[in-house]
Amino acid sequence: MENDGFQRLDRKLVYKAHLFDLYEDTVQVPNGNVAKWDYIGHKGAAAVVPVLEDGRILMVNQFRNALDRMAIEVPAGGRESTDEPYIDCAKRELEEETGFKCEYEDMEFLLSLKTTVAFCNEQIEIYVVRNLKKSEQHLDEDEVIHIKAYEPSELRDLIFAGKIQDGKTIAAIMAYLNKYNV
Amino acid sequence: MENDGFQRLDRKLVYKAHLFDLYEDTVQVPNGNVAKWDYIGHKGAAAVVPVLEDGRILMVNQFRNALDRMAIEVPAGGRESTDEPYIDCAKRELEEETGFKCEYEDMEFLLSLKTTVAFCNEQIEIYVVRNLKKSEQHLDEDEVIHIKAYEPSELRDLIFAGKIQDGKTIAAIMAYLNKYNV
Repeated sequence: MENDGFQRLDRKLVYKAHLFDLYEDTVQVPNGNVAKWDYIGHKGAAAVVPVLEDGRILMVNQFRNALDRMAIEVPAGGRESTDEPYIDCAKRELEEETGFKCEYEDMEFLLSLKTTVAFCNEQIEIYVVRNLKKSEQHLDEDEVIHIKAYEPSELRDLIFAGKIQDGKTIAAIMAYLNKYNV
Repeated sequence: MENDGFQRLDRKLVYKAHLFDLYEDTVQVPNGNVAKWDYIGHKGAAAVVPVLEDGRILMVNQFRNALDRMAIEVPAGGRESTDEPYIDCAKRELEEETGFKCEYEDMEFLLSLKTTVAFCNEQIEIYVVRNLKKSEQHLDEDEVIHIKAYEPSELRDLIFAGKIQDGKTIAAIMAYLNKYNV
């Protein structure tokens, strides 16, 4: 049941947005109906769980226009192209957003997630990174990012209190707590 | 630092898709630049972690056009309108997708997440539900959904093996394992 009887007949670009392309797909569904579905093509992104020597986790806090408020998140950012390896994107975004850098051997793959399976192909690969070295933030000119380290238990409490709502961040932190039994 | 110096000057509808509306926002950023950012307005959704008497969790498996493959997920679905209480949406989607129903007193709020903070306001509220009673699936005419129960430890393994990638599902299952120490 690879496609379970669904067959895509057409994919039509309907709008080129800044971060993604929006398509209208034509899909034949198993009952014979032909449906029109939204599809967003996204370059993908990477995120990191940066663990300090004392076990605290470095988080970023930034204004998110889509939420109309600040959001506490794991450091993350989009790939420059669909050819960029996710690990390179993760390494770059760590340094750009937090001003700390890491070596490849200190990056451990945690998990891969799809943000929005109903209408978008965005994939985020998440790495746990350690042995951070001080470097410098290199923000995009329209970015303002604040960094703060939290105890893992604080992050858990912030999630269950609804103070951290970002999906990739909840997945990353909860998976980190589980995998490393923190 | 409620908005940290960011101010939205305009929000223009650029495309009405099937599941959401796409806007181009004009935002003044702290350095004085005026940026154009994507914004997707979504009605929101709800999901459930349905726990059977023996501790297994009922999951759905369906073809996802955006991924071009099947995906194992917690039962979930969109709100009918922005006025619909998330808990009502969760209760309805449980029954529609799995053919099991539950009472309000057997629904416990787990967490609330935002799927895509970079460009979409979609919020998903997730409930743990117990004391399921057999009812009937009521699928939309273009839906085909298979259900299967898994041990919590199997779901953990599927996530770390990359066989479950849906973001809301990873967040929900990992948070469930953590909260109930399963």
